[in-house]
Amino acid sequence: MKNETIILGHGSGGKLSHDLIDKYFLPHLKNSILENLDDSAVFDLNDSLLAFTTDSYVVEPIFFPGGDIGKLAVCGTVNDLCMSGAEPLYLSCGFIIEEGFSFDDLEKIVISIKQSADESNVKVIAGDTKVVAKRSADKLFINTSGIGFLRKDYKISGSSAVVGDKVILSGYIGDHGIAVMSERHGLSFETKIKSDCAPLNNIVRNILNEGLGVHVLRDPTRGGLAAVLNEIARQSCVTVYINEDKIPVREEVMGACEIMGLDPLYIANEGKFVAFAAPEDADKTLEIIRSCKYGESAQIIGEVKEKSKGKVILKTSIGGERIVDMPSGLLLPRIC
Amino acid sequence: MKNETIILGHGSGGKLSHDLIDKYFLPHLKNSILENLDDSAVFDLNDSLLAFTTDSYVVEPIFFPGGDIGKLAVCGTVNDLCMSGAEPLYLSCGFIIEEGFSFDDLEKIVISIKQSADESNVKVIAGDTKVVAKRSADKLFINTSGIGFLRKDYKISGSSAVVGDKVILSGYIGDHGIAVMSERHGLSFETKIKSDCAPLNNIVRNILNEGLGVHVLRDPTRGGLAAVLNEIARQSCVTVYINEDKIPVREEVMGACEIMGLDPLYIANEGKFVAFAAPEDADKTLEIIRSCKYGESAQIIGEVKEKSKGKVILKTSIGGERIVDMPSGLLLPRIC
Repeated sequence: MKNETIILGHGSGGKLSHDLIDKYFLPHLKNSILENLDDSAVFDLNDSLLAFTTDSYVVEPIFFPGGDIGKLAVCGTVNDLCMSGAEPLYLSCGFIIEEGFSFDDLEKIVISIKQSADESNVKVIAGDTKVVAKRSADKLFINTSGIGFLRKDYKISGSSAVVGDKVILSGYIGDHGIAVMSERHGLSFETKIKSDCAPLNNIVRNILNEGLGVHVLRDPTRGGLAAVLNEIARQSCVTVYINEDKIPVREEVMGACEIMGLDPLYIANEGKFVAFAAPEDADKTLEIIRSCKYGESAQIIGEVKEKSKGKVILKTSIGGERIVDMPSGLLLPRIC
Repeated sequence: MKNETIILGHGSGGKLSHDLIDKYFLPHLKNSILENLDDSAVFDLNDSLLAFTTDSYVVEPIFFPGGDIGKLAVCGTVNDLCMSGAEPLYLSCGFIIEEGFSFDDLEKIVISIKQSADESNVKVIAGDTKVVAKRSADKLFINTSGIGFLRKDYKISGSSAVVGDKVILSGYIGDHGIAVMSERHGLSFETKIKSDCAPLNNIVRNILNEGLGVHVLRDPTRGGLAAVLNEIARQSCVTVYINEDKIPVREEVMGACEIMGLDPLYIANEGKFVAFAAPEDADKTLEIIRSCKYGESAQIIGEVKEKSKGKVILKTSIGGERIVDMPSGLLLPRIC
């Protein structure tokens, strides 16, 4: 049945989001840069390669364990830039504020933006502020767009995975989604789960500076690891095999998922990435990631085995195999 | 009295907006590029000068006579880029959609984005879509960020006005604000007032290609002509004199303003700009603007007479003089 109106699932990062893009955006706006559908758009300007990306942040609540909407807005856009292999340079921040929002909270968030920008070594150089009436927005939305500088010796793209590539995951999955959801619903677990929200450009720079054979980088935000692996498998026309045993999931995240009937593969992350590396360079890439802040728990979780229309297969802990689908609709609204 | 929370006036483009920026954003985020506070941020990359800008559009209603939020989002950002003297190249579009929004309206707006991008000769190369629950946003907000390429033979900035400069206004003021307000309140006038929403980069390109002595370009959107002239006067530390008789205002806009007790100097425009030109080049600049689409009704409306702390003085039709203040709070919420 055709949906007549937009539903929450269209913002999920899963199948409905892709349908929306395919049916309503691409047919009208398609051009040779936009159609790549990578985390950043890449274009050439006066013989320099630049990356450009945009993201609106509507996370609810705006303060959560391990971060807030300001930190998220900077890290999310920094990560989208570096996932295309770019060195993030400049950000813009557009604020849409609900009337009645407190100055104290606004200042906390601006300070958080500043701290995350400093850690990521980027500058906020352009801004905009709009205010709308009560109930015309929910507290605060932030759009950050970003510009990065691309080295020419790499072509990192979701369509560059090849048979033989090892799939490296930079650490524990599910922390961000479970942290936000716990805060939202007032759930408490024995150990407080914190969002993993963090900038990843330092790790990426270290990998690329070594000249290692890395073909794809992508951060599993909305839709989780399942969504990004499916995207990459489809863009590159390959089958990706992953081993459940190798995927780092914290005990408390697994516990929360079990209670709520969720699969950690589909939970959003904000400080993790997957790298598809040539087999001969995989161990060295893993070593570099593990040597960096935010990459200490990295693992090789799988590999690309054959050409296909794009499929992700999970080898389960008990030895079976199952297809990991693209999430269709909505797991957690307003997770980022 | 200090406001404890954000009020609608903080998004007005007037004094409260400037206070918000000065008190909460600049102290934390200040850097040598951001602090210029021009319509676009300008930075150097590999010996190319680039302009970068961002704007969120929250106009209500999203369809109005002469345009819609999609056309506005493209033209507004194209105009911010060219007001810094840049040739607009690439845009991003970030959509925040309220659950229940219709696909038909979304498609109309995407088509409008495409048409305006084509007319402006820019490409949308990056996008993002978020969906929030009913009453967490009002229908649709769009953020567009943009990148443009700057020629090095010009330094266009709000701080570049000098004594002697002539002030050129590219056409009738107040059309956008009155069109949106009439639509919102169901007012009807004998002649339908249409928004002037239009891309201005073609006019600007023609001026700069002639190598004319133009020092400032700015488009009077939120806060109207009064706000931008005050901004320029303050940034350049000069007094700007304008003649009421020379300022083009349509009869029906003047009539609507009289009925509603508004001053057209404070009403938003979306397809107009002011140029501060050296006296010897003013007539030629005027001639070029008038020869272009969207500039046919341009006028020289005043001049810069002396150094000061920044002041705008209006010579009225009856021969008097009055200070034109920066608007303080809010005239029309959600006008762009």
